[in-house]
Amino acid sequence: MRKTYGLVLAAGKGTRMKTDMPKCAYPILKKPMIEYIVEKLEKTTINETVVVVGHKKEILMDILGNRVQYAEQVEQLGTGHAALSAESILADKEGVTFILPGDMPLMEIKLTDKLLKAHDEMGNDLTVVSMVYDNPKSYGRIVRDKYGVISAIVEDKDCTGEQKAIKEVNSGVYVIDNQILFKILRSIPKNERKGEYYLTDIVSLMKHDYKIGSFVVRSAYQMMGVNDLYSVSIAERYLRDEINKNHMLNGVEMVSPNTITIGHNVLIEPGVTIYPNTTITGMSTIREGAVIGPNTEIHNGNIDEFAEIKHSLIYDSTVGAHTTVGPFAHLRNHAVIGDHNRVGNFVEVKNSTTGSGTKAAHLSYIGDAEVGSNVNFGCGSITVNYDGVKKHKTIIGDDVFIGCNVNMVAPLTVGDQVFIAAGSTVTENIPKGSLSIARNHQVNKADYYNNLIKPKPKPEK
Amino acid sequence: MRKTYGLVLAAGKGTRMKTDMPKCAYPILKKPMIEYIVEKLEKTTINETVVVVGHKKEILMDILGNRVQYAEQVEQLGTGHAALSAESILADKEGVTFILPGDMPLMEIKLTDKLLKAHDEMGNDLTVVSMVYDNPKSYGRIVRDKYGVISAIVEDKDCTGEQKAIKEVNSGVYVIDNQILFKILRSIPKNERKGEYYLTDIVSLMKHDYKIGSFVVRSAYQMMGVNDLYSVSIAERYLRDEINKNHMLNGVEMVSPNTITIGHNVLIEPGVTIYPNTTITGMSTIREGAVIGPNTEIHNGNIDEFAEIKHSLIYDSTVGAHTTVGPFAHLRNHAVIGDHNRVGNFVEVKNSTTGSGTKAAHLSYIGDAEVGSNVNFGCGSITVNYDGVKKHKTIIGDDVFIGCNVNMVAPLTVGDQVFIAAGSTVTENIPKGSLSIARNHQVNKADYYNNLIKPKPKPEK
Amino acid sequence: MRKTYGLVLAAGKGTRMKTDMPKCAYPILKKPMIEYIVEKLEKTTINETVVVVGHKKEILMDILGNRVQYAEQVEQLGTGHAALSAESILADKEGVTFILPGDMPLMEIKLTDKLLKAHDEMGNDLTVVSMVYDNPKSYGRIVRDKYGVISAIVEDKDCTGEQKAIKEVNSGVYVIDNQILFKILRSIPKNERKGEYYLTDIVSLMKHDYKIGSFVVRSAYQMMGVNDLYSVSIAERYLRDEINKNHMLNGVEMVSPNTITIGHNVLIEPGVTIYPNTTITGMSTIREGAVIGPNTEIHNGNIDEFAEIKHSLIYDSTVGAHTTVGPFAHLRNHAVIGDHNRVGNFVEVKNSTTGSGTKAAHLSYIGDAEVGSNVNFGCGSITVNYDGVKKHKTIIGDDVFIGCNVNMVAPLTVGDQVFIAAGSTVTENIPKGSLSIARNHQVNKADYYNNLIKPKPKPEK
Repeated sequence: MRKTYGLVLAAGKGTRMKTDMPKCAYPILKKPMIEYIVEKLEKTTINETVVVVGHKKEILMDILGNRVQYAEQVEQLGTGHAALSAESILADKEGVTFILPGDMPLMEIKLTDKLLKAHDEMGNDLTVVSMVYDNPKSYGRIVRDKYGVISAIVEDKDCTGEQKAIKEVNSGVYVIDNQILFKILRSIPKNERKGEYYLTDIVSLMKHDYKIGSFVVRSAYQMMGVNDLYSVSIAERYLRDEINKNHMLNGVEMVSPNTITIGHNVLIEPGVTIYPNTTITGMSTIREGAVIGPNTEIHNGNIDEFAEIKHSLIYDSTVGAHTTVGPFAHLRNHAVIGDHNRVGNFVEVKNSTTGSGTKAAHLSYIGDAEVGSNVNFGCGSITVNYDGVKKHKTIIGDDVFIGCNVNMVAPLTVGDQVFIAAGSTVTENIPKGSLSIARNHQVNKADYYNNLIKPKPKPEK
Repeated sequence: MRKTYGLVLAAGKGTRMKTDMPKCAYPILKKPMIEYIVEKLEKTTINETVVVVGHKKEILMDILGNRVQYAEQVEQLGTGHAALSAESILADKEGVTFILPGDMPLMEIKLTDKLLKAHDEMGNDLTVVSMVYDNPKSYGRIVRDKYGVISAIVEDKDCTGEQKAIKEVNSGVYVIDNQILFKILRSIPKNERKGEYYLTDIVSLMKHDYKIGSFVVRSAYQMMGVNDLYSVSIAERYLRDEINKNHMLNGVEMVSPNTITIGHNVLIEPGVTIYPNTTITGMSTIREGAVIGPNTEIHNGNIDEFAEIKHSLIYDSTVGAHTTVGPFAHLRNHAVIGDHNRVGNFVEVKNSTTGSGTKAAHLSYIGDAEVGSNVNFGCGSITVNYDGVKKHKTIIGDDVFIGCNVNMVAPLTVGDQVFIAAGSTVTENIPKGSLSIARNHQVNKADYYNNLIKPKPKPEK
Repeated sequence: MRKTYGLVLAAGKGTRMKTDMPKCAYPILKKPMIEYIVEKLEKTTINETVVVVGHKKEILMDILGNRVQYAEQVEQLGTGHAALSAESILADKEGVTFILPGDMPLMEIKLTDKLLKAHDEMGNDLTVVSMVYDNPKSYGRIVRDKYGVISAIVEDKDCTGEQKAIKEVNSGVYVIDNQILFKILRSIPKNERKGEYYLTDIVSLMKHDYKIGSFVVRSAYQMMGVNDLYSVSIAERYLRDEINKNHMLNGVEMVSPNTITIGHNVLIEPGVTIYPNTTITGMSTIREGAVIGPNTEIHNGNIDEFAEIKHSLIYDSTVGAHTTVGPFAHLRNHAVIGDHNRVGNFVEVKNSTTGSGTKAAHLSYIGDAEVGSNVNFGCGSITVNYDGVKKHKTIIGDDVFIGCNVNMVAPLTVGDQVFIAAGSTVTENIPKGSLSIARNHQVNKADYYNNLIKPKPKPEK
């Protein structure tokens, strides 16, 4: 069977991005642009993929590893020159080559198959992929002869007045017989104005001896090249909307989906509801019946069934079934919360585990702790895990009641069924079943108001 | 006067919704879809409404109660069969029947009157409501004879190639003489391919003996049928935008209204400003001059004039005039905050009342308390309302100053003009005008740094 | 050189706004509408600008000060009457006058130059600026004679059936020879129906003796008049999108830019990333490498390079380089945070300064404090700055460790290298290098659980 090759042009710096990164490494929805193209090629029948790298090539090679082969374009002398730098890898091979820009993340995966089919059915040596734009400004125009055959691609700046009016533009994607490609690439002349070798010149060079056809893409948005951070934002919106639509069609309810961002690797089961302004990214899993948001950010989170998370942040953490988190709660750094827990407002949990039925309803910090089941953290109670030098661990048993504003100075072990009185700072271990108290008695001194602060001024507004 | 009937088809499960609920019970902006239709019928001249129920009929009947009559479609044998199940209620009656799908929440209320007028003026026996779609795919097509008269409605899957190109599609809404309807319904043949009775067949069955006309709806979006959670999100956006537009035209300023959700039963006076990412639902009232948001969620909240709520949550609670709440505050479960109060950051108030001019500016929890006027809650002060067994009440008088990190262990009564020293845990009542203190004296031990922890390592990054 | 004048009509109340403010004073993106117009005139070649004021004129005059001259329209007798009220200032002057409504904030700045050029090139005495609307309803129509020359502008309500179909509408912007203008204004008749003098009548009054041309604006959105709070929201979206686009093209990454609001006077360097639902307003500066948002609000904030602010609020405050703020932090009233600090969750800083490397990771309040470098605020530690009468200051040296739930009762000076034990309330100054402690010893009372609270009920759900 005939072989097919992918030749991805990714050497450019992307000056208009105004960042120091090679353009095709720039992430969209936290995935580098180049990965969108390479993933699509991997999922089709492409036998070998060569990525042409140049500016800061290490960054791209670090992203793609050995998923592809690399050709290096040392000087930036134009797209024709870029394609030619793959010569030593591809030139001899029989088959058909897809030439693709590395900055086209929206291209639909089925397009490559459609293209190959059209290329074969038309018996083309070269198929130019084009689209029609109402405002073709800045794009290379597809010039056709009187028979409608493509005779040239002319860059916007080289267009005559008449050519400027052409609305069919070049996408930068081509399908071409591989051996013809490398033969022709050698003959591209240097463009006078720019001093570069234009890949688009293959059309005029091939028009006499080869069959050139075209394939006009209907959903033109997918051929959008990303050249600046404004187009990054547009591409991102398309990708986000598409991901969201798929989740909704799969049974996930989203309220105001245009304010919701779901990453590529997030698993969400049907029966989940997501409220506005919520972001779920990383390797996250949301189980059936969970309610997420509004105003929630989850990164690498596992949310078990029927858990509810609102106005809260979950980083690298797990929330058990039927547990409620938030509003204004923050789990991070491997917090593993059991089922039927409540993590309430202004509570932070870090690197800790809890059993079943445990509650920290308000204004608490639980850090570096192993907590049992049915523990009640009073409002303002704190695991004092840091002594100024090191972090220490707090171990709390089952059925423990921790009073309000209690400090548990770690290292500390609190047995099962312990009761710690409000306002206590405990520094020593507490045996099972004990009451622990560490505070002073109350003294009421009469007539304080009249003697000392009268007339009391109005409290500060 | 002639009578009119509503026949709402709501028996379907809605498989593509991927939920277990009957489709027409699914809520949009917290209101079940079926209610949108029934409400509109109630506001027009319809004399009787019959809702055809089937899958999980109890859920729909629970929503609608005795606002309508019910017909049950036991087996799901198509729309013709569904309509026929209303036979025992409607068949004998004289008048005109509106047939409506239960999944069309965007239909404008004035459409029924327009339809009836058109039906009468044209002298129709049947009026088919259609719309024109550029992409008619999946819709039943309106087939017309050479005189332009409707001769059939053909389901997408039964269309010939030529019929597939027709852009006029069936909305599923019909106006029809009631007695003719039930006569014809009996004669609908079973569709071979699907084994169902198609309501759309009434057109071909009636075309010889009756007058059939059409009514083409201009604003086609209103005829959108909701079939999956993606279309739920689209319908919701329309409804939300419409509600927001009405509030803005009424003098409410909204910044980024596409991120603001206002429920159906929310009263907002002119002169209110609402900032982005704000949701107000339930039976809520917002008075003139109030400023709400950003990032605020109010459900069943009463916000009095010139109050300001930002980055905060208000559930089932009341905020007095000129009071400021937030950022990051949380009122819930019948918090009733007086006027000119300040509820500041990281403060939760639950099931409590406050007088006038009271302040809790930071990091406090006020639960199950009756608080007077001009009280100052110091930062970190807490009403200790839970003893591990029961919740207890805290009563605080006027002009009380509560120091920082104070615990008030309930049940507790604090008289007027009391001053509680910072860091105290108070467990006994405090008489009017007293200073209460419950803490230890400070000891400074010299040279601690040099003797014990030198060299101090860098604090953890 | 010929002189040019701006005549801005801003006397109207704007009844449909439903606010008490004169319409042109209403702010969009916190800038009064009138300022958009006046700013554009100031940046072009206009020699003198006259603003016609009327309803609550003080408000507009307070906004514009002496940037313009004022003419007062005492009675509201129509646009012709409004223009005429500038007679005493402008009537004698030679040159060309731009007449502009004060409620057109989206007009592009380059339009005035284009207009003047077209006016001169066509040799017009009057140039009427129009646009073409598919739905021209409610706009004044441009009526042309059989030669295509403008012969009248007819208000929507005065249109014949035929005129109603005209899609070219009046923008309300005119360029006219100044002396002709004031001659013609005097001859406008009173409109019978409304009892007002229509400025649009200058067309029919001038058509015989003067040359009238038209200028059709392509980007018609820019001529949108703002008449109600719904159109305020539309204008705001345009302005916001334009500001965001410019920042992105300049190298600022924005995720979901449609949820991001950046004010007019905000400086953002290339290399900054902004996450969704973020608002930056006032005189704010964001330096290279900073990461802002999501859910962040900055007003008058200076954020230094590589600082990260998330889910937080910064008002009138400064954040040093490489400092992280949030989630759920709140800086206000001249908080000046040093470099490499950490301000963590549920922390408020007000009117305080910190050195380098200081941390307050959770649940703290720092108010009215001068804090040194490498200070560690334990969780729940508080500067007790208010004694019920006055605010006092806390001064903290370098390398201080403050334990959890510590109260520092101001006025207080804490020396370098001090260690304050968790749970202490300190009221007296602490010398350098000391340990300070103010709490009671812990007592564990055995068998409390069995004797007193057995059987322990389930904690409240």
